[in-house]
Amino acid sequence: METNICADKATLLISCKDNKGIVASVTEFIYKNEGNILYLDQHVDHHDGCFFMRAQWDLCNFKIPKEKIGEYFNTLIAERYKMTWKLHFANKNIRMAVFVSHMPHCLYDILSRVQGGEWNNVEIPLIISNHDKLKHIADEFGIPFHVIPITKENKDVQEAKELQLLKDNDIDLIVLARYMQVVSDSFINHYPNQIINIHHSFLPAFPGAKPYHSAYERGVKIIGATSHYVTPELDEGPIIAQGVADVNHKNTITDLIHKGKDLEKIVLSKAIWNHLERKTFVYKNKTIVFE
Amino acid sequence: METNICADKATLLISCKDNKGIVASVTEFIYKNEGNILYLDQHVDHHDGCFFMRAQWDLCNFKIPKEKIGEYFNTLIAERYKMTWKLHFANKNIRMAVFVSHMPHCLYDILSRVQGGEWNNVEIPLIISNHDKLKHIADEFGIPFHVIPITKENKDVQEAKELQLLKDNDIDLIVLARYMQVVSDSFINHYPNQIINIHHSFLPAFPGAKPYHSAYERGVKIIGATSHYVTPELDEGPIIAQGVADVNHKNTITDLIHKGKDLEKIVLSKAIWNHLERKTFVYKNKTIVFE
Amino acid sequence: METNICADKATLLISCKDNKGIVASVTEFIYKNEGNILYLDQHVDHHDGCFFMRAQWDLCNFKIPKEKIGEYFNTLIAERYKMTWKLHFANKNIRMAVFVSHMPHCLYDILSRVQGGEWNNVEIPLIISNHDKLKHIADEFGIPFHVIPITKENKDVQEAKELQLLKDNDIDLIVLARYMQVVSDSFINHYPNQIINIHHSFLPAFPGAKPYHSAYERGVKIIGATSHYVTPELDEGPIIAQGVADVNHKNTITDLIHKGKDLEKIVLSKAIWNHLERKTFVYKNKTIVFE
Amino acid sequence: METNICADKATLLISCKDNKGIVASVTEFIYKNEGNILYLDQHVDHHDGCFFMRAQWDLCNFKIPKEKIGEYFNTLIAERYKMTWKLHFANKNIRMAVFVSHMPHCLYDILSRVQGGEWNNVEIPLIISNHDKLKHIADEFGIPFHVIPITKENKDVQEAKELQLLKDNDIDLIVLARYMQVVSDSFINHYPNQIINIHHSFLPAFPGAKPYHSAYERGVKIIGATSHYVTPELDEGPIIAQGVADVNHKNTITDLIHKGKDLEKIVLSKAIWNHLERKTFVYKNKTIVFE
Repeated sequence: METNICADKATLLISCKDNKGIVASVTEFIYKNEGNILYLDQHVDHHDGCFFMRAQWDLCNFKIPKEKIGEYFNTLIAERYKMTWKLHFANKNIRMAVFVSHMPHCLYDILSRVQGGEWNNVEIPLIISNHDKLKHIADEFGIPFHVIPITKENKDVQEAKELQLLKDNDIDLIVLARYMQVVSDSFINHYPNQIINIHHSFLPAFPGAKPYHSAYERGVKIIGATSHYVTPELDEGPIIAQGVADVNHKNTITDLIHKGKDLEKIVLSKAIWNHLERKTFVYKNKTIVFE
Repeated sequence: METNICADKATLLISCKDNKGIVASVTEFIYKNEGNILYLDQHVDHHDGCFFMRAQWDLCNFKIPKEKIGEYFNTLIAERYKMTWKLHFANKNIRMAVFVSHMPHCLYDILSRVQGGEWNNVEIPLIISNHDKLKHIADEFGIPFHVIPITKENKDVQEAKELQLLKDNDIDLIVLARYMQVVSDSFINHYPNQIINIHHSFLPAFPGAKPYHSAYERGVKIIGATSHYVTPELDEGPIIAQGVADVNHKNTITDLIHKGKDLEKIVLSKAIWNHLERKTFVYKNKTIVFE
Repeated sequence: METNICADKATLLISCKDNKGIVASVTEFIYKNEGNILYLDQHVDHHDGCFFMRAQWDLCNFKIPKEKIGEYFNTLIAERYKMTWKLHFANKNIRMAVFVSHMPHCLYDILSRVQGGEWNNVEIPLIISNHDKLKHIADEFGIPFHVIPITKENKDVQEAKELQLLKDNDIDLIVLARYMQVVSDSFINHYPNQIINIHHSFLPAFPGAKPYHSAYERGVKIIGATSHYVTPELDEGPIIAQGVADVNHKNTITDLIHKGKDLEKIVLSKAIWNHLERKTFVYKNKTIVFE
Repeated sequence: METNICADKATLLISCKDNKGIVASVTEFIYKNEGNILYLDQHVDHHDGCFFMRAQWDLCNFKIPKEKIGEYFNTLIAERYKMTWKLHFANKNIRMAVFVSHMPHCLYDILSRVQGGEWNNVEIPLIISNHDKLKHIADEFGIPFHVIPITKENKDVQEAKELQLLKDNDIDLIVLARYMQVVSDSFINHYPNQIINIHHSFLPAFPGAKPYHSAYERGVKIIGATSHYVTPELDEGPIIAQGVADVNHKNTITDLIHKGKDLEKIVLSKAIWNHLERKTFVYKNKTIVFE
């Protein structure tokens, strides 16, 4: 991979009923057309007979023109196995919107990874917040910042504004970086498996608000953070990544919050990175992550 | 500590309302009487104004006779601060009963630590089980094994038998090493904060039966084990130790159970060790562990 | 896998120069002959152009007779790609010898996993030690124990005795469970990549004797244990598994040794388990572990 | 602590030869003068007979005027025990200089913690680099950025410039945030135990340049990062904090570098935080960290 100098790479994500010969068929499709496989991951859920595959290859000598690969793959392979599939190209950036509220640590972490070049396949056209408290950060990083305050009464109207902004900016992925607002079901349904949230506990322990306070009350010896795709069931979406840290009786709630911030930003960024790299599948309210 | 060649050590556990001068008073009591402090740990819950302390010193040159230390401490220090306190001597072993059922891994781990000399302050006079499946292990390690099957109907009678056995054997500590039975409230009340259980999940996530199945269903990326003192509220007693391990989509329930066994035995043994070393306090359904 | 009721499974380990179509050829070989793939893992070292694959399938309906699978695979697939390959069957146990010295914790851990059924694909025909200190453990578990004391002067003769015993017992795998003796090059050459050692540090930090003392002197905040295949270069063989634990300034060398024991037994057993499951490859003094 | 509304806090760091009655004397000094102890940590190296203590108390009702506390403590307590001691007040910020080169991740992490208010007891008057590559970050965060290129030939002159800048800015702490330059002995001697470095490996494994390449070559299963005080012996200064992450055969050097960045920034920031909180002692080329 370090030696790959080709202009572009294709990433193919496949899921279907498990069947004999799928891996052979897909790899043959790539090899026969002079594709050089960079990554090949597959997973079979033997219990349900479901098959998942991620293949990435470089397009240097690939004989099928880029704009025809999908059509050919569909005709020659996908239809036979009744596959659900998606094809991505590495040189097309993902457009990501970040939603924030009062807490800056996850936002800083995301913006610094993008600006610092650690994530080179994404751009952030806008940040949305219900407050202006973090506007100065958006300004420093040169990103448009939209303040859209949300109350019970105006939620419908304000979410409509948000959706319009997201549509106007051609957004592929929404990150709730400690947004602290419950997003409506109808909003979620516009972006299925495209909204990533960070919950500041080790789900399913301590769902809902104030999990560090609950963790403190319970006297746990380990705290956690959980990043998941957002579904209408609050804090019950498919988990992408989790992280933990030790705590002890000396730690106050303030200490837990302090320690938790590091967990939150690292776990959220890990989940985003796996999504950006097209390494995640959602299946039965769980994720398959080919990392 | 490595250089301590004295015959015995005293360990004093204190809790009381926080007050100025407590540490000074206790350490002065020890020093004035020529005690050499080996460990001194203290914790203040500033929110509730509660004070906790563990002091361990060697008794080589201690001027107060061993059998009088408690009386002197009570008169000179404890009464003034209305302390709750306990005094232990290192050369008196804790007598521990182990309750098991079908799963051997925690039992093996405990017995091998005792027989191998890793835990040198404990003896195991008996093992109790509702089955005879693990009797051969008790035989190998030369420990009496009592089969006391429990059903809904006979629970009262059988627990009475168990309590008699525990009393006859002068038991200080009961370890439920994957015992898989709910112990009755009245049984628990005979041994407050003296029964340690291992729960095979990261409590409070997945309480109750079959937690690995629940973890698998939920699609968590980290599994855990939790060791806690047993209280009448099932799986809600004070947590002593927790441990975690990474899992991913490739892991079946069988894999989770397999990985979990290592967690369970290490976490349970860590909790037991902290109890044996007299490093645990219970307070507000939480533990303070001076490790 | 949970639903597999077949009598036997085949595990095929392959390495060769990377080439187009290998995965397709191997999976086709299995599928065409009605094999049901349970696991399929592959790895390509893109830098060196090397390919590695592990395939496991059940033999219920496999059309090639078990004793002919190797021949057919070699003729039809392996020769074309100049593969190095090995074929294992799940119902043939690995025969493992354990070498010990004074420390019992790893030995207990290994024996309890085998006797408790956690490892069900291995048998231990003998234990070898340079002392009789742990003989009682072998006796409890009913395993022959051979005391073969080794000095500089008698090393050749004694190792010859050991090799004879290993040969007589048809040993496939040797585990040095804190054996504390350097094994000679000629001994190692009899069992290439078949001797697993546990080193009680985070290699390559602190090779050689007394690593906990060195770690204590250096003031590290994390200690480790490393399990590796033994090669003539002391403590420099291919690493199979590593584990770590936090330490702090309060920990004495005795504490480090105490904490380290848990690491050692868990890490060694993890390495053994991966070997038993035929999930390890050795390549360029490193391991590929398909876990 | 959450309820402390006092204007200021005192933090006293003490080390001396262990002696009976020290804790009693110090706590009595604080209590008699109406100080309310917030934290009290002590450590005894029993092997060498050395004593270390950190006491923090609020000054609301403290009877000794702030500017006289040191004098009184010295006269009444410190001289008797021949203590080395330092007294800090919470409302005086530490002035920290950050040295950088090409890699931005640690710099972003530090600046976002300060600007975001996570670290509220520090200010950063300047950033120094041998390149202008990260100047834009300093500009965004509004911090003066000095480019001081260093070659073998001009090292003396350039370090003299740096020292003058540090002096002019009244710097208490220097952080090498992936500075990638070896600092001269004479420079280090100006700031003993006041220069914190992050090394991108699990020291003492892989000191020197390119540790991820070395880790890759060695085939380790865990990588690490180490933050330490800088001493004239390269990469051998007292370790303050370490962190680790799992890696496997699939990870390229690029992956190791990518994963390592998260470790580096979290471990470096943890070490800085402990220093800022005055929780670190240096002793025998090791640290005591009262966290």
